[in-house]
Amino acid sequence: MSTFQPDKSKVREVLDTVKAAGRGSLTAPEGKRVCEAYGIAVPQEAVATSAPEASKLAQGMGFPVVMKIVSPDILHKTEAGGVIVGVKDAAEAASAYEQIVANAKKYKADAAILGVQVQQMVKGGQEVIVGAMTDASFGKLVAFGMGGVLVEVLKDVTFRLAPATREDAGSMLDSIQAAEMLKGVRGGKPVNREALEDTIVRVSQLVSDFPEIAELDLNPVFASDTGAIAADVRIVVDFQPKTPRYRPDEKSVVAAMNRIMKPRAVAVIGASNETGKIGNSVMKNLINGGYKGTIYPIHPKEAEIMGLKAFRSVKDVPADIDVAVFAIPAKMVALALKECGEKKIAGAILIPSGFGETGNIEGQEELQRIGREYDIRLMGPNIYGFYYTPSNLCATFCTAYDYKGTTALSSQSGGIGMAIIGYSRSAKMGVSAIVGLGNKSDIDEDDLLLFFEQDENTQVIAQHAEDLKDGRAFAEVARRVSKKKPVIMLKAGRTAMGAAAASSHTGAVAGTDRIYDDVLRQSGVIRAKSLRQMLDFARGVPILPTPKGENVVIITGAGGSGVLLSDACVDNGLKLLKPMPKDLDEAFRKFIPPFGAAGNPVDITGGEPPITYMNTVRLGLEDDRIHALILGYWHTIITPPMVFARNMVTVVNEMKQKGKVKPVVASLAGDVEVEEAAQYLYENGIPAYAYSTEIPVEILGAKYQWARSGGLLK
Amino acid sequence: MSTFQPDKSKVREVLDTVKAAGRGSLTAPEGKRVCEAYGIAVPQEAVATSAPEASKLAQGMGFPVVMKIVSPDILHKTEAGGVIVGVKDAAEAASAYEQIVANAKKYKADAAILGVQVQQMVKGGQEVIVGAMTDASFGKLVAFGMGGVLVEVLKDVTFRLAPATREDAGSMLDSIQAAEMLKGVRGGKPVNREALEDTIVRVSQLVSDFPEIAELDLNPVFASDTGAIAADVRIVVDFQPKTPRYRPDEKSVVAAMNRIMKPRAVAVIGASNETGKIGNSVMKNLINGGYKGTIYPIHPKEAEIMGLKAFRSVKDVPADIDVAVFAIPAKMVALALKECGEKKIAGAILIPSGFGETGNIEGQEELQRIGREYDIRLMGPNIYGFYYTPSNLCATFCTAYDYKGTTALSSQSGGIGMAIIGYSRSAKMGVSAIVGLGNKSDIDEDDLLLFFEQDENTQVIAQHAEDLKDGRAFAEVARRVSKKKPVIMLKAGRTAMGAAAASSHTGAVAGTDRIYDDVLRQSGVIRAKSLRQMLDFARGVPILPTPKGENVVIITGAGGSGVLLSDACVDNGLKLLKPMPKDLDEAFRKFIPPFGAAGNPVDITGGEPPITYMNTVRLGLEDDRIHALILGYWHTIITPPMVFARNMVTVVNEMKQKGKVKPVVASLAGDVEVEEAAQYLYENGIPAYAYSTEIPVEILGAKYQWARSGGLLK
Repeated sequence: MSTFQPDKSKVREVLDTVKAAGRGSLTAPEGKRVCEAYGIAVPQEAVATSAPEASKLAQGMGFPVVMKIVSPDILHKTEAGGVIVGVKDAAEAASAYEQIVANAKKYKADAAILGVQVQQMVKGGQEVIVGAMTDASFGKLVAFGMGGVLVEVLKDVTFRLAPATREDAGSMLDSIQAAEMLKGVRGGKPVNREALEDTIVRVSQLVSDFPEIAELDLNPVFASDTGAIAADVRIVVDFQPKTPRYRPDEKSVVAAMNRIMKPRAVAVIGASNETGKIGNSVMKNLINGGYKGTIYPIHPKEAEIMGLKAFRSVKDVPADIDVAVFAIPAKMVALALKECGEKKIAGAILIPSGFGETGNIEGQEELQRIGREYDIRLMGPNIYGFYYTPSNLCATFCTAYDYKGTTALSSQSGGIGMAIIGYSRSAKMGVSAIVGLGNKSDIDEDDLLLFFEQDENTQVIAQHAEDLKDGRAFAEVARRVSKKKPVIMLKAGRTAMGAAAASSHTGAVAGTDRIYDDVLRQSGVIRAKSLRQMLDFARGVPILPTPKGENVVIITGAGGSGVLLSDACVDNGLKLLKPMPKDLDEAFRKFIPPFGAAGNPVDITGGEPPITYMNTVRLGLEDDRIHALILGYWHTIITPPMVFARNMVTVVNEMKQKGKVKPVVASLAGDVEVEEAAQYLYENGIPAYAYSTEIPVEILGAKYQWARSGGLLK
Repeated sequence: MSTFQPDKSKVREVLDTVKAAGRGSLTAPEGKRVCEAYGIAVPQEAVATSAPEASKLAQGMGFPVVMKIVSPDILHKTEAGGVIVGVKDAAEAASAYEQIVANAKKYKADAAILGVQVQQMVKGGQEVIVGAMTDASFGKLVAFGMGGVLVEVLKDVTFRLAPATREDAGSMLDSIQAAEMLKGVRGGKPVNREALEDTIVRVSQLVSDFPEIAELDLNPVFASDTGAIAADVRIVVDFQPKTPRYRPDEKSVVAAMNRIMKPRAVAVIGASNETGKIGNSVMKNLINGGYKGTIYPIHPKEAEIMGLKAFRSVKDVPADIDVAVFAIPAKMVALALKECGEKKIAGAILIPSGFGETGNIEGQEELQRIGREYDIRLMGPNIYGFYYTPSNLCATFCTAYDYKGTTALSSQSGGIGMAIIGYSRSAKMGVSAIVGLGNKSDIDEDDLLLFFEQDENTQVIAQHAEDLKDGRAFAEVARRVSKKKPVIMLKAGRTAMGAAAASSHTGAVAGTDRIYDDVLRQSGVIRAKSLRQMLDFARGVPILPTPKGENVVIITGAGGSGVLLSDACVDNGLKLLKPMPKDLDEAFRKFIPPFGAAGNPVDITGGEPPITYMNTVRLGLEDDRIHALILGYWHTIITPPMVFARNMVTVVNEMKQKGKVKPVVASLAGDVEVEEAAQYLYENGIPAYAYSTEIPVEILGAKYQWARSGGLLK
């Protein structure tokens, strides 16, 4: 079925007619022809010009049929008595023909009557909806949902980027709330998944091949065990092509981003000796941050700034410069940017505000024009700058940051950027980069993904975004990058109120959240629900090894934690190994008191010495049927927090030596000493939290989500 | 309508017949009679004993009708050919009668045939379900949901304790997912809410009046704009009364709990001089905790323990004792408990494990019997003990705790109890009590509620529970207490896996989570989603003043925080004041830069000095149209974290002097110094979190939920 070859010329022909006629939508017969050209099943229909012909046509389709007047002069067919439904046999078809023509003549004597349309009546199975739309950020999307009240009242619809693969289509059938209905309810037969998937794939292909199709609705589609037939087709067209967002080729992006992130020389435009000035903070951070390349302060008058020779313009610098950090008022930016262009600088870090976010759209567009003309990439404007720790580069007015690691973060908002810096420092989260994107006049999330994809210093990418200027580009890049490195996103403006706030704040118009949710998942992106969760994921996901299978086991000293950890497993899509294989269950039982509970959670009970934790965890790491461990520690005098922590690290490392590498997370219940133990565990590869049973499991869940979407799990 | 007086004697009569016949369920006509007696509308029906009578009856009801065999010997009516639906006129009714009787005789020659039931066929409107069930913990519950696939596939059902008030019934109509359908979809008319509410209220009254009705199902009920008619009635009865859980009267509970929490003398049974022993830890904690009453160590041999005179038995103590803390092995508990009984001790704190949780059910039942016989209340067994800080009482083997405050916490699990202690100490959360409930052989959550209700030292109550042994008692007490003091609950075992873990761990069988969710809400209890959230609520809710209205305003220095805070408001059911009244908007604008955004969030922008935060927050507190503030702080050099924090506390206190008392929460984005600022704000009445936009809003949301359910908001 899926090897069907569409007849593009037939669609072209229909669309040309519509365009020539200056229409904005297709007639029902036109819509049907378009569907037929793409192998999308529609009810059979034909126009009869006599009663005997109507009988014959109806017999060919099978009964019942519906019959409708065809006349350019009759708009309201039902009102004119021009529609008869439920025609049951050949005789009825003939008399219905006569009746409809008579009614039409009576309704409007001079109406031109072209005949009577005979149409197969499709019923039975489940009513579903398949559609396509054009989103300002994501472009063509295909939609699927249940028909009737389910879509109207419960908004039970799911989206994917078009064109959708057959796998995408299959996932759509499973990701609506009422998915179970497709499997047959009340003794009904399951729908033919293949036919529905075909319909989705072909609709998505059709709108991708013909971008002028702005909207398409098949509503309802009758999905039964034998097939899927679209009973009604509505197609809206738009022949005005949109200007796509500027998007350099990937090689150029990576080349420019490498010069920006690993520059041999940095200019600071507006460098200053005066404490409190942004240009002074930037200089201090570059110097104190330990940047080893050359720094060129640019200042109209000063000869030396912070002990470094200053220049009046970048053009006066007698060497190549890779990056210019701007710390000058908005109105002076354009001129300086041109000079950077002439100097062939790769990137301009536009800290100044006073552009798009304050309504100065023209000012921002001017920068974009200059950037394009001279081929300089622009970061910002309206940002705090950026950090790239492998280069010891703190190109920002915030405090210097030097805790190196493999997590790259970015934020659209400066405030969120500061929260990232604070959390990173407080939690000792190692980062490779923290980047402010602000107004995103040019460099945006997908540019960063392209750089971090090939950056040997980055293992995980976490981004805060209020909108995606080019969601399509992001999704395409993310789909590839996320297979190699986990990509985490905090999408702000999820709710209508949040979106309204986003739009007043940055001029960004947030898309419907369900679309973001679906497309991010389709692209393999892990979506964080909250700022704190994004930060926890950014910290925990990179240090966890990738699991090799779905079997999770909880080992806990506190039965109560076991219950909450089990709840958290369900909430985060983790599968507990259940029932525990008999031999494994017995093996665990050997280590725990007789009143402890094996099974899963393995409840070792509260009064146990360190060896019990060690024995059970060692067994959990050793046995190949177990793929991940969640530990629930209970603070007791017999096993104090740091004793537990050190022992766990010992066992995990010991098993690592033997090639048994599995993700382990821990929840610590106890007095304040558990905080130190949690930090120690975290720094030694075991994400651990005090006073929380949820967060460690959320982190493990995020790692699993990534492993699954990358096809790394069976 | 709601003043309808049910005819109880009619129901009694039906149930007596069923009981006498030894049946477990009612016949359809019996079910109908029961409904009619309670004013629950059912289709008209009557039994015909001849074909002409069937015609006549059917004509009286209006067509179509459905006809069914009435025979005690035929259980499967359809199989016997005993049902004919859609009977359209009098002639059809007569022939259907003959046909049904003939079919029945053919099916079972010796069947006693009592006649043929003629029943009005009801259609149109929305199909809904009203039912009642008997839950092991909550007793009688009434249920409401949408009929058909919505309930089958989406499980869209809601529950309330029976009897339900009219207000409860109204809230049920609004709390199903597909509530909008009741308002009329696709141009349909809205259902008659009053009729549906009547049905719910009366069903709930019926099962409450007649506890032997174990299950009742009206499925479907056809709800239209004119009324609600139950097309099918199914009633299952159970004449074996259940033994209710032991429940002393409230006065006795409070009297006993007061002696337990504020004892003049405490005995420690199993007190020990030996470090590491539980009896030693308990002694240390009592002494070091600063308990001012008398402590009596009980030991079989020692003359003195930790400097205090020891006794061989509580009976040897020459004075009254209020509480005995048990620190002896399980097998010795019963004997010592009897002695406590003879000594008229009010409460036994049963730390020892080895009872119900290890399968020793008889041992636990023995303790319950002794407790009842001597009127001693039992806490535990299998607990860490309890703290009551106003008495400086640390009756536990954990570390002493002395940070006093107004939050009372309890946990079913010891591990969770330790997490509570650790978090409380770490966050400097002031607590009045921390209580371990363990196996809950006697004292449970509602006993604690009764004590804390009248305890002048407690303002908020937070409880962790895996099950409620007597959900009915809890809900009844919580409904009253929650009107005075916020009650927060973390219900573990939400998911099937969690419930399974709970049952293996404590023998508790967790009920369906939706029931807990609905009943807790009906009782005014704030449900925490996670352990951390329960702790955050316990800490933040009591220090927030109660809002006087729904209008929330966000004031933020970081636009990005404003977006996330807006999202969080929607997630937590908070209403932003929108649109902002013109004069108020202008008043805010006077304080912020021209490119800042007024409206809501009020975005004062990032570069502002402390005075801008002060001016806008002062205005927000002063204007009576605003009822609560959410602050979004952005760390800058010009307004450092502690400067912001001190200023906010100053403004809030200044306005408090003027009688302007409103809840204020804060989200702090910045470098690590914001952690100190958050702690300072918290300790001065403003719940504040670093690196999180969600948690402060969740806390405000919890306060609002409480204020709303207590009827404190307009």
